[in-house]
Amino acid sequence: MSETIDPRQKILAANAAAAAALRSSFAAAGTLVLNLISSPGSGKTTLLEATTRRLVQRLRLGCIEGDIATERDADRLRALGIPAYQILTGGACHLDARQVHRALDEAVFPPLDVLFIENVGNLICPTSYDLGEDFKVALLSVAEGDDKPFKYPAIFARAEVTVITKSDLLPYTSFDLDAVRRQVTTLNPDGVLLATSSRTGEGVDAWCQLLADRLAGKRRQPA
Amino acid sequence: MSETIDPRQKILAANAAAAAALRSSFAAAGTLVLNLISSPGSGKTTLLEATTRRLVQRLRLGCIEGDIATERDADRLRALGIPAYQILTGGACHLDARQVHRALDEAVFPPLDVLFIENVGNLICPTSYDLGEDFKVALLSVAEGDDKPFKYPAIFARAEVTVITKSDLLPYTSFDLDAVRRQVTTLNPDGVLLATSSRTGEGVDAWCQLLADRLAGKRRQPA
Repeated sequence: MSETIDPRQKILAANAAAAAALRSSFAAAGTLVLNLISSPGSGKTTLLEATTRRLVQRLRLGCIEGDIATERDADRLRALGIPAYQILTGGACHLDARQVHRALDEAVFPPLDVLFIENVGNLICPTSYDLGEDFKVALLSVAEGDDKPFKYPAIFARAEVTVITKSDLLPYTSFDLDAVRRQVTTLNPDGVLLATSSRTGEGVDAWCQLLADRLAGKRRQPA
Repeated sequence: MSETIDPRQKILAANAAAAAALRSSFAAAGTLVLNLISSPGSGKTTLLEATTRRLVQRLRLGCIEGDIATERDADRLRALGIPAYQILTGGACHLDARQVHRALDEAVFPPLDVLFIENVGNLICPTSYDLGEDFKVALLSVAEGDDKPFKYPAIFARAEVTVITKSDLLPYTSFDLDAVRRQVTTLNPDGVLLATSSRTGEGVDAWCQLLADRLAGKRRQPA
C-alpha cells in the first residue's frame, strides 16, 4: 500500500507544479492575482464589475472567468473595458492551474497590475486547487445564511479574505454578521473580513484599497 | 483504449448498482424519495422545515442530511419531530448511493411515506449521482440571480422539479422569474417550476400538494 499513489494526490501534485510555474511568472510580471471562490450567485462577477468601475482608470485589470457553460460573465467584464477570457469547463466543478496556463497563452493579455480569476461557482471543489494566486477570496452573500463558514470550513480557513456580499439585503434576512465573523476568526485567525454591497457600494472602497495595498506590498518584495 | 475503463465511469457504475438496490427497497416500502440539490444557502433545510410543519400530522416524514461538516441541519428537522440522519462527508462534494444505504442501516427509520435526501450544498457534483430517488429537486434562490439554469444546465435538465426559493426577496433583487422559467423549460420541457417563500409561505402549499400527488401516484404503480 505504501507504494500506491492515490489518483487524487497525483492530480493535486501535478496541479501544484503548474501553479508554482504560474506563481513565478506572476511574480516576474508584478501582477497581483486573486482566486475568487463562492457558491453560485454570491456575486463574484458583480463585485468584479463594481471593482472595475472604481479601478479601471488607475490600474491595469484583467480577468479569467471559469464557468461550466456560457460566456456571460466574461462578456459582462469586457463590456466595462477590461480584457476577460472565459474558460468553459464543460462539467468540471473547479478550475485547475493548467487551464489557467492555457488561458493565459490564448488570451495574450497586456501587462496587468491585477488579474482576477473567478472560479466556477462552488464552495467546495475549487478550494484544493492552487492556481498560482497571491491569495484566495471567499465570497458569501447574506442571503446564503450565517451558518456557512462552519458548514464549509475548508474554504473559509484557506481564504485570506472573506467578502460578505449583498449587505443591502441584511434588513430582509436573519443573517448575523457577528456570528459569521466569529466563525471566520475561529477558522482563520489572520483572515480579513469585509462586508460589502455591490449595489449600494458599501465596503467596495475598502475592498479596492485592500487590492491596492496588496499590490504595493507584492511589488516591494523581491520577485 | 477500448478496454480502458475511466475511473469515474467505474465509480458511477458502482453507484448506479447501489442506487438500483435502494430504488427497489423504496418501491417495496412505498416510500416517495426526493433528492434535493442546490447551492449552499438556497434554502433546502428551510423548505424542509416549512414542509414538515404542514405535513407532519398527515404523512410519515424522514430526512437524510448531507453536509461536509456540522449536525446542524439534522438537528433543525429533529426539532420538528421527524427522524433525521446526518451524513458528514468530510470533504466530499456530494452524496453517493452507498452512503445513503449505510445511513438507512444505521438510522433505523420507522416506515416512511416520504424520505427527503438533502444533498451537500453544491449545484454541480451531486447531479451525476443517482441516490435511488423518485426524482431530483433543484432549488434556486432569487438572490442567486436569474442566469443560473443556463450556467449550470445539468441539474436543471435532470431535476423534475425546480423550486424557486426566497420569493419574498424578489422586490429587492433584479431576479426575472420569467427568464428563469424560459431557461428551465428549454433545458427540461417536462419539468415543473414552483416559486416559493418558506418565510411567507407562498407556494409551499402547492409544493406539499405536489408531494402528496407524487406519493399517491407512486402507490398506484405496481412495486
